[in-house]
Amino acid sequence: MTDQSREQFEARLHQIGEERYHDKHPFHHLLHSGQCTIDQVRAWVINRYYYQSRIPMKDAAFLSRVEDHRLRRIWRHRIEDHDGTGEGTGGIERWLKLAAGVGLDPEYVRSAVGVLPSTRFAVDAYVRFVREEPLLPAVASSLTELFAPKIHKDRIAGLLKNYDFANAETISYFQHRLSEAPKDVAFGLEWVLEHAISQAEQDAAAAALIFKTEVLWSQLDALHSAYVAPGRIPPGAWQPHQGLA
Amino acid sequence: MTDQSREQFEARLHQIGEERYHDKHPFHHLLHSGQCTIDQVRAWVINRYYYQSRIPMKDAAFLSRVEDHRLRRIWRHRIEDHDGTGEGTGGIERWLKLAAGVGLDPEYVRSAVGVLPSTRFAVDAYVRFVREEPLLPAVASSLTELFAPKIHKDRIAGLLKNYDFANAETISYFQHRLSEAPKDVAFGLEWVLEHAISQAEQDAAAAALIFKTEVLWSQLDALHSAYVAPGRIPPGAWQPHQGLA
Repeated sequence: MTDQSREQFEARLHQIGEERYHDKHPFHHLLHSGQCTIDQVRAWVINRYYYQSRIPMKDAAFLSRVEDHRLRRIWRHRIEDHDGTGEGTGGIERWLKLAAGVGLDPEYVRSAVGVLPSTRFAVDAYVRFVREEPLLPAVASSLTELFAPKIHKDRIAGLLKNYDFANAETISYFQHRLSEAPKDVAFGLEWVLEHAISQAEQDAAAAALIFKTEVLWSQLDALHSAYVAPGRIPPGAWQPHQGLA
Repeated sequence: MTDQSREQFEARLHQIGEERYHDKHPFHHLLHSGQCTIDQVRAWVINRYYYQSRIPMKDAAFLSRVEDHRLRRIWRHRIEDHDGTGEGTGGIERWLKLAAGVGLDPEYVRSAVGVLPSTRFAVDAYVRFVREEPLLPAVASSLTELFAPKIHKDRIAGLLKNYDFANAETISYFQHRLSEAPKDVAFGLEWVLEHAISQAEQDAAAAALIFKTEVLWSQLDALHSAYVAPGRIPPGAWQPHQGLA
């Protein structure tokens, strides 16, 4: 690939984020500006937990298909970042501290009872995608992390400013992601730029990134529909009095 | 299974429909009562087409796992009902007549471009479920057809009464389903009642039916959110000026 073609392709990936990343979704504006009720925050914590909980499974599915031990070695730390190295460590347990901080029973959140079916369908589609698609789209689908640092910074500032539950412990998940995500995505982006040479490969990688933005957007649409407007909670999903600590 | 236990289990399945079937979703009330705009009807036709188009793939996935040729023989006609026996026959081509009747280009609808990502995630989850789960839940997930005749009758009456596009040709899909679905579900129900003996089996069958109601409900939530209220169309999904004939 010429330097020019590489630059154009990288710009194309960034453009997908400009147009489709879920920082544009109105739920995030509500959340970061302090306009969410505590129950809306809880609904977000419960549903987003399901996504968090599936990320290491997604990365394990990826590892299970990689023949090069050096690539596996680099990718493996993503699982460690989320699952931790012992009690009280790792992104999932940090997320459960957030759950406790907003008044939810962490065991209820962990059970994934009450997660919106639409959240499950979207997240499960992501795990399946990484398990079944070729390695190039599988890696490319992780590149939404290119757009994550800004939303994490906005979230940390917005939560701390606007909600009583926010403190160093409850937002530690996002604080850690600020340093983890850029490291991950620097590798992922370089890998995709190196391997997406032909037009067909670049198209497949771009389509994978679009798919991933859809996975994220779909979750917020479901959350907004159920708990903001029109506020129609699907049969069986979390009701605001359930799962409290 | 005693007759009593069988009756209780059958009642449990019906209760799931009472509580969760998508005839309770407000989008269907809008559609059947003539309160949908033509663009909302088009959005429904485009998205529901994706579901229709995957049903024979779902049934083929099921066939591919059945060892008993007699069960395969009985189940096979579901694929024939949808795919037809020649040009102009079968449920999918009847659905495309509805698409043409509401002013859409059938080729656009067939392309599945513009289908809501949440629709894809839900429908793909259903195909995956039938491909991967044990045969009992796979069959049980089809039992939403127990509740279909009423909604089809309401739909036929409501469309004919309230919309200029409705006529014998455009609604022929639903007219055919009125005779096809009860035949299918009579067999499916009997099969499930025969094979779900233990409590664990009955629970698995009930969970599969609940899962399927979630697949249907999720599609209508996505449709309602995108095209009714708040009317927030996700990036890349169908916009009302697209795909017209």
